Amino acid sequence: VSRRIGILGGGQLGLMLSESLMRFGVEIAVYDPDAQAPLCKHATSVFNGAWSDEEKLSAFFEECDRLTYEFENVESELLFRLEKKKDLMPGASVLRITQHRGLEKGFLSAQKLPHVQFAILNKEDAENARTAIVDFGLPCLAKTTFGGYDGKGQYMLTSESDVQELVDSNALTKVQHVLEEAIDIAIEVSCIVARSRNGEEVAFPIFENQHHDHILDLTLVPARIPHSVASEIESIARTAARDLNVFGLLTVEFFLSRKKPRSAAAREVDGWYIMINEFAPRPHNSGHVTMKACDLSQFDMLARILLDVPLKKPQLVSDQVFCMGNLLGDVWIAQGKQELDLSTLNDFPDVIDVVSYGKKDARSKRKMGHFVCRAETHNKAIDTAHKFRNSLKTKQYLHSKL
Amino acid sequence: VSRRIGILGGGQLGLMLSESLMRFGVEIAVYDPDAQAPLCKHATSVFNGAWSDEEKLSAFFEECDRLTYEFENVESELLFRLEKKKDLMPGASVLRITQHRGLEKGFLSAQKLPHVQFAILNKEDAENARTAIVDFGLPCLAKTTFGGYDGKGQYMLTSESDVQELVDSNALTKVQHVLEEAIDIAIEVSCIVARSRNGEEVAFPIFENQHHDHILDLTLVPARIPHSVASEIESIARTAARDLNVFGLLTVEFFLSRKKPRSAAAREVDGWYIMINEFAPRPHNSGHVTMKACDLSQFDMLARILLDVPLKKPQLVSDQVFCMGNLLGDVWIAQGKQELDLSTLNDFPDVIDVVSYGKKDARSKRKMGHFVCRAETHNKAIDTAHKFRNSLKTKQYLHSKL
Repeated sequence: VSRRIGILGGGQLGLMLSESLMRFGVEIAVYDPDAQAPLCKHATSVFNGAWSDEEKLSAFFEECDRLTYEFENVESELLFRLEKKKDLMPGASVLRITQHRGLEKGFLSAQKLPHVQFAILNKEDAENARTAIVDFGLPCLAKTTFGGYDGKGQYMLTSESDVQELVDSNALTKVQHVLEEAIDIAIEVSCIVARSRNGEEVAFPIFENQHHDHILDLTLVPARIPHSVASEIESIARTAARDLNVFGLLTVEFFLSRKKPRSAAAREVDGWYIMINEFAPRPHNSGHVTMKACDLSQFDMLARILLDVPLKKPQLVSDQVFCMGNLLGDVWIAQGKQELDLSTLNDFPDVIDVVSYGKKDARSKRKMGHFVCRAETHNKAIDTAHKFRNSLKTKQYLHSKL
Repeated sequence: VSRRIGILGGGQLGLMLSESLMRFGVEIAVYDPDAQAPLCKHATSVFNGAWSDEEKLSAFFEECDRLTYEFENVESELLFRLEKKKDLMPGASVLRITQHRGLEKGFLSAQKLPHVQFAILNKEDAENARTAIVDFGLPCLAKTTFGGYDGKGQYMLTSESDVQELVDSNALTKVQHVLEEAIDIAIEVSCIVARSRNGEEVAFPIFENQHHDHILDLTLVPARIPHSVASEIESIARTAARDLNVFGLLTVEFFLSRKKPRSAAAREVDGWYIMINEFAPRPHNSGHVTMKACDLSQFDMLARILLDVPLKKPQLVSDQVFCMGNLLGDVWIAQGKQELDLSTLNDFPDVIDVVSYGKKDARSKRKMGHFVCRAETHNKAIDTAHKFRNSLKTKQYLHSKL
């Protein structure tokens, strides 16, 4: 019988990983609380249960030969018990650190990996929070240490009145937060490192990421940074993956600044200050660009690691610029349709890929799909991405083509 | 609710088509007599029934919004009735012609498309077959008009004793055959044309195909033919797709000869004689190379046609040579394992893709997977393909790496 790979989480990352796994002839099992999750329609076996349902999760682990996760907010304590039964990649010890901003910052500091200045705000100390934040220094960000994503649970604090507002909201009395110095960001980049149990380690080219409303908007490859900086970033990302003992993918997100930050733990290369923002021990939104830009995608790579197939250094397929753009629910809302109307693609020959995750419920900031375009220059690629996405949302445009 | 696309046949072509369909968020239904067929593990809904079970097929059509086939030997008469309920692409009228070598040859002749010299041998006339074959001219091939593939049901006749042997076998009394002149083939190529209901028509680059034991062995792109010949081939393939009124993919296989054939219906360009060998109204084994060589694969293209997403001219991703090699059951038999051992991949950095279809039963000539490699020249690509495939089959090689 074929091996069966289990995926914790049935969202778009799991769906696209399953495409790569299918190509090795294995069976796919998915666990997700939501029976409508994208992968649930395409997996060989489907388990729907709560993330806290240890009995059901345990039955799921029994069914699989090896497992991974595409969703980070599973309690790692539970996974420590479950991974004793079956191989989980990356292991629960990786997830425990990366799912908790406090532990993550502590890890960066202990391992002397470059990072921003930070401080922990325990909920027990909330009464002294105002002083603690002002002493830490403004501007800064307060972020919940567990469970936030895409800007949820984050507060930008630029003035003492911002601080007072946050203190008055009582948010700090409820959960632990971490304070981070606000960086004057020149550019954000990410680097995905892949490591196998067989001692192989390869890194993807570095991606340049642009955010909008705290959500990834565009990813460009190659990133517009000097070679020396790229080389140091790759080296830092590889070190982090080794230090965390990751078997699987580790995505490392970086802030790059041209101004000296407060943090003494930033790494400087040729006037660029490099700091790790955060880790994700899984395929990453920015890595979707690899599906068209590289000869092996991030999902192909993770499938190989899960199946003990030798890795290969991923290479760009051409010297063009590739740009991935997210499609959020607002596109579906603007179109007023369940299925994405792609009729404007005709006018965009450089948009070479569109993926729709098949989510039923379009909410304005929900990640529902993405596309990839290419061009000779970065500016052209960004321009095409904006124009294509606007074309999908503009009724006049849609109508003029009917 | 999402649209549901039905695929008649759950083999590797259906499996790879489903990958491309999944990326548009739709559901996939499969019909196959074999519950172990590759796609049955990954489809949203699975129907297992005989190809002749009209009731079950009818229930399958009811479940789907639109359908296609990856398997050509479904009775077209049955599909004519079924396609009245739901959209079948390409239509039953295309399949009726392309699934029957006699009708196919008649079509080529009627449409003045270039073809080899041929004659029909009806089973009722089998008693005169010996004379008919000798009068037609040797060397020639006798092929069953329905149901053969990968060289099954084909006889090469070079001498009168070959003819006598075939006559004595009584094969000709059982089913209709077609005689074809034996061509001195310089090179075999294929061209895949895609046509949508919205009037779009695009062609893939031309592939060069090498066969072994009547089974496709390697596909190379670009094909080693002059530009003028390639251009004529594409034009012929497009004309054929239009004449057949294909909405979907039409693969046209060609024989190219540098010697003038007997057929007056061959097309000559710069000393190259071009003849259509046969049609397949579906994704084609040679088109697997498009998954790495082109920005859009043959499966992506068919998914777009089925979902009314605008097409795009497929382009080669780089100016390198790409080579697809089939992996037959003999590789699995040599390895003696259910799952393919790919440990030698480490030594072949230019092998950029390996796909295993997840078939349970390894038989020596069964298509079980394929790979794609790339190189700067055709000879290097062919050499890498042979060496990689040999590495998978050679125990010494496997052992020396352990």
